[in-house]
Amino acid sequence: MTAAAGRLAVVGLGPGAESLVTPEAAAALADAGALYGYGPYLDRVPARPGQRKIASDNREERSRAEAALTAAAAGGRVALVSGGDPGVFAMAAAVCEAVEAGPAAFRQVDIVVVPGITAMLAVAARVGAPLGHDFCAINLSDNLKPWELVEARLDAAAGAGFVIALYNPVSRARPWQLGAAFERLRRLLPADTPVVFGRAVSRADERIEIVRLAEAGAGRADMATLVVVGSAETRLVERPGLTPLVYTPRSAGGRTR
Amino acid sequence: MTAAAGRLAVVGLGPGAESLVTPEAAAALADAGALYGYGPYLDRVPARPGQRKIASDNREERSRAEAALTAAAAGGRVALVSGGDPGVFAMAAAVCEAVEAGPAAFRQVDIVVVPGITAMLAVAARVGAPLGHDFCAINLSDNLKPWELVEARLDAAAGAGFVIALYNPVSRARPWQLGAAFERLRRLLPADTPVVFGRAVSRADERIEIVRLAEAGAGRADMATLVVVGSAETRLVERPGLTPLVYTPRSAGGRTR
Repeated sequence: MTAAAGRLAVVGLGPGAESLVTPEAAAALADAGALYGYGPYLDRVPARPGQRKIASDNREERSRAEAALTAAAAGGRVALVSGGDPGVFAMAAAVCEAVEAGPAAFRQVDIVVVPGITAMLAVAARVGAPLGHDFCAINLSDNLKPWELVEARLDAAAGAGFVIALYNPVSRARPWQLGAAFERLRRLLPADTPVVFGRAVSRADERIEIVRLAEAGAGRADMATLVVVGSAETRLVERPGLTPLVYTPRSAGGRTR
Repeated sequence: MTAAAGRLAVVGLGPGAESLVTPEAAAALADAGALYGYGPYLDRVPARPGQRKIASDNREERSRAEAALTAAAAGGRVALVSGGDPGVFAMAAAVCEAVEAGPAAFRQVDIVVVPGITAMLAVAARVGAPLGHDFCAINLSDNLKPWELVEARLDAAAGAGFVIALYNPVSRARPWQLGAAFERLRRLLPADTPVVFGRAVSRADERIEIVRLAEAGAGRADMATLVVVGSAETRLVERPGLTPLVYTPRSAGGRTR
């Protein structure tokens, strides 16, 4: 006997504030019989009668994805919650990995990914438009890739003029990587390149700092921080009595606007 | 006599569906006395009594930003609407440029950027998690940068293993650039690298196509299309009776999960 396959919504909660959760995400959460996720993300979702919450640890992405797929394959309506956007260094890739490696029943699940405001967009919005021209996003964690590959990507991105958003810049187990990344980028970029540290944007403990690359150090970041390193074209505009704007012009390579 | 400076909200409407407009964006639109924007974006905003809409052409980003800043500097509560996210190849950079080059009064305006779901996140969500690992976003238009710079960035990104999101892949005035980009990427990436064409995602005329890089041609894209070109690690998972999943694993460079 085969149960009818259910539905798995992989839902992006955005950076934190409820005002940045899309109506589509809110509807997908309300529709689910069971919610899976990292505890602090589940805590953001209002409790509903009859709806179960199954919390797991931050590092258990793959097993969490498998548990959610198993429940959906058995006919459940399941939501797997993700901070930011599920497709950017978050749960959607873990779900796809689990589908590819898992039982045939996982391939029958109706999987819907609901996008969210990813951290780099929220941080960029706070300071102006640092991602206003070509940019890249690099996961600075070397848990799942060799550090030499991170270095090669930093070099390629800075060398080609991309603005760089650094996700997962530091953790207790990875204290030195961000400092090493700044050292490396200082060889390729001007000392006064703007660097933005955006922590917990839209939450109560939000903190934004703008420094020059010459002064950028790993001590300004923690696990809740997203770092944006400008390109040589990124500009800082001072405003009397207001925070400066940081932006990357739409034109590049000497073209006039 | 100096009028008190007003407020300019630069608001991201997301990819199209109202269900992907955040509550913060909806509130910023409701709060404005005047809305500025490209006509088709303004048409997405419900009409409100007493609220003016000032439409302008797609190419007039800088003058539209100046008009909105002028109205806000005179004390108005102004919203400037943007498709997707205002900070990604959209209005926020044009506003910052106008502030830097404009009169001192522009620097007194309270500028708030409200992030939105940018096209690459919406397209990625439809097919799985193609942006699941390091990726970049390149504006393929050579209106504001030399084509040689686009080529150098394509080479750097593909060579270093970034997934590539191509914004503004074609227009009537730029018919050949996307084909040239595919040609270039075919030299650096495997023939079976997945390529996703995502058109008008979340709108009535949405269309998603997944092809191999060997088959990717510019004819599949128009002005409403966002193209995602995978890396050598991007995978396609077939599912009987369902559309395939496209994803980039969280691990890279030979690290096991």
